[in-house]
Amino acid sequence: MKRGTSRDIRTANRYEVLRQIIAESPTSRQELAATTGLSLATVATLVGELLDLRMITEVGFEESAGGRPRGLVAVNAAGGALIGVDIAETYVHVELFDLGLNVLARADEELRPGENRPEHVVARVADAVGAVVARAGDGDGAGAGDERVLGVGVSMPGQLDRDAGTTEYASNWDWHDVPLRELLAERVPYPLYLDNPLRAGAVAELWFGAARGRGDAVVVTLGTGVGAGLVLGGGLHRGVSNSAGEWGHTTLVLDGRPCICGNRGCVEAYVGAPGIMQHLRETSPDSPLLRPGDQTATIGALGRAVAAGDPVAVEVVRRTARCLGAAIADLVNLLNPEVIVLSSWVAAALGEPLLAEVRGAVAERALRRPLAATAIVLSPIPTDPVSLGAATFALEGALESVGQRTPRRPVPLKSRTA
Amino acid sequence: MKRGTSRDIRTANRYEVLRQIIAESPTSRQELAATTGLSLATVATLVGELLDLRMITEVGFEESAGGRPRGLVAVNAAGGALIGVDIAETYVHVELFDLGLNVLARADEELRPGENRPEHVVARVADAVGAVVARAGDGDGAGAGDERVLGVGVSMPGQLDRDAGTTEYASNWDWHDVPLRELLAERVPYPLYLDNPLRAGAVAELWFGAARGRGDAVVVTLGTGVGAGLVLGGGLHRGVSNSAGEWGHTTLVLDGRPCICGNRGCVEAYVGAPGIMQHLRETSPDSPLLRPGDQTATIGALGRAVAAGDPVAVEVVRRTARCLGAAIADLVNLLNPEVIVLSSWVAAALGEPLLAEVRGAVAERALRRPLAATAIVLSPIPTDPVSLGAATFALEGALESVGQRTPRRPVPLKSRTA
Repeated sequence: MKRGTSRDIRTANRYEVLRQIIAESPTSRQELAATTGLSLATVATLVGELLDLRMITEVGFEESAGGRPRGLVAVNAAGGALIGVDIAETYVHVELFDLGLNVLARADEELRPGENRPEHVVARVADAVGAVVARAGDGDGAGAGDERVLGVGVSMPGQLDRDAGTTEYASNWDWHDVPLRELLAERVPYPLYLDNPLRAGAVAELWFGAARGRGDAVVVTLGTGVGAGLVLGGGLHRGVSNSAGEWGHTTLVLDGRPCICGNRGCVEAYVGAPGIMQHLRETSPDSPLLRPGDQTATIGALGRAVAAGDPVAVEVVRRTARCLGAAIADLVNLLNPEVIVLSSWVAAALGEPLLAEVRGAVAERALRRPLAATAIVLSPIPTDPVSLGAATFALEGALESVGQRTPRRPVPLKSRTA
Repeated sequence: MKRGTSRDIRTANRYEVLRQIIAESPTSRQELAATTGLSLATVATLVGELLDLRMITEVGFEESAGGRPRGLVAVNAAGGALIGVDIAETYVHVELFDLGLNVLARADEELRPGENRPEHVVARVADAVGAVVARAGDGDGAGAGDERVLGVGVSMPGQLDRDAGTTEYASNWDWHDVPLRELLAERVPYPLYLDNPLRAGAVAELWFGAARGRGDAVVVTLGTGVGAGLVLGGGLHRGVSNSAGEWGHTTLVLDGRPCICGNRGCVEAYVGAPGIMQHLRETSPDSPLLRPGDQTATIGALGRAVAAGDPVAVEVVRRTARCLGAAIADLVNLLNPEVIVLSSWVAAALGEPLLAEVRGAVAERALRRPLAATAIVLSPIPTDPVSLGAATFALEGALESVGQRTPRRPVPLKSRTA
């Protein structure tokens, strides 16, 4: 049985203190105690650990009224680098971050149709990771010589066994039991942290976005596939076998549209990008908005058209929002969260018009009491939340290692790129 | 934001130790440490607190190989009494328990049609509480003189504001903003703990039933209404405004059957007792199993008929299980729990035949990985889980008060019944 232990609490508190420092640097131990609700003694200990790890640094003093000057700490942006890898159906997107989670370098690799065997994907990831490390190492002024890659977080769609580091099943490429971490480790010489995009998106919101400071939040990922990253009790809810969040494969219409999972009537079949294209075909079969075979172009065109008030686009967004609103009302009624965040590229493309229709549809269907407690918002994260979240898994991994074992010896960027 | 604090951990550990002692008395501190994973020092402290509260008692020693004899503790059944109140649509059922959660007395009060204003219901609750206290006080050998009512847990259907002690909305009687705790306090002279039957059923399974020792479990209540009590991360998930678990009002068939909540296509409309009666009418309009206006009789007749292999009953259970299975597969895919428990009177009446069909229907629809991790079982609790769970809230309340304030002065049974 999972039970909160002192060690879990300590790790959670360490996350919380670092989160606050990242959000507001410089800051004092006293301010941190006030914001987090932890005792000053606890904060002092945790700050000491983060200083030892060189994740934060002392940056001077502020005067306090009548008392001793207070020491200030700030993120030591140059104290380490984190890499986030977003593996998607048609591309691999990689970002390298400093410890303030600012992007220092990006790289993209295309996955051409047919290039979806594990060795293809691993090669593209290794190329892109090599590219961001090289770029950051050649960088100007980011203190490159001082940087260290603390870890690489990898987001891979589908069902993952995190302990084994294997993709148990990925429907997009029909992968079964692929030892992804092992394959990656042959090409990527940094500590690796695997998880899926639902959880990467959720942890990004929890650390840096609309779920910060919320106990219960749901991050709804709207892309080709759809799903829900669950933040419950202030932390990620993974479920007993790390499979929680498959909201895309819950039933919206019993015996409805066929779904890629083999079932019928799943939420994803109505609100995933292919499902939205089907709403468009049903609304206006000859619409010029429809780019057959190209989800990204179609959803992009739909987003521009709805913003311009195009009646077909408005109707398609309304149909989509009706289904999405019913499925989000299910999350409101079942989980009673504080906030539901709409994330990923479809949410970004359809934006405010989708949000407004969804809010209306949820209000029609959710129960009054949980509805009143729930805000529905678009993700405020301006960059790719999945690579940010993946990098955050690497940051969490580095924080978790404190006191557990000797921290892994970081690999200096210079020597890798030499 | 909710965050685990040392105080939460301490309370959770106290629950866990008492749960173990209730499950297995007598036991030693060493055994408790081994079962719970807590340190011997922590166990010794918690056992000391429970001894001070007279919830447990020293009962001798066991020889240990070569070492000092180990002290044994057991539940002090006579150290206190707990009362559980199950308010339902047509009755009030009250049980009085000793601290081993054995039933010492029961009382039932009927709620006749029309008798559903708050003052009616409060009067029936007060009568039934008075009756169980009188019976236990007159009892033979349960150490009546030594007993003390530590608290009364009350399960009331609908949406509750626990802090305010009010029923915000109860669809069955169309109650709005009823100050139930205040009204009850005028008639019931013990500490009162209010919650709803979904959570009462879940906490009963968590302490005494199929969710014991499970981190993530869902307790599905199948009655006139349906819902899900969520155990996540080893504790009850209440949501941000204590409204989580309204799985009965999630969508199974978009635009489907009308539901009592005003929406359409809700799970409850297909698998609540009235929904099952509708399956029966659709299968065989003139079936003698159908007792119009009497859910209890109809479901009871259906249960006996399906056990005897009656083809109409088999078909109705299959239709019900198809809907229920799809809705339970949603819980499996979204939450990835270790166990799903079917509870309440409809589950009890339809029993194994329903369970077998539900397992088949879930297996057709849930994703492989979470499905493999989830057991689906009938509640093993032989008595009313709702009154047991309500009494458990009172027990938890008493345990939570340790160290928080001077424990409320318990009211001796004798003086109340004199």
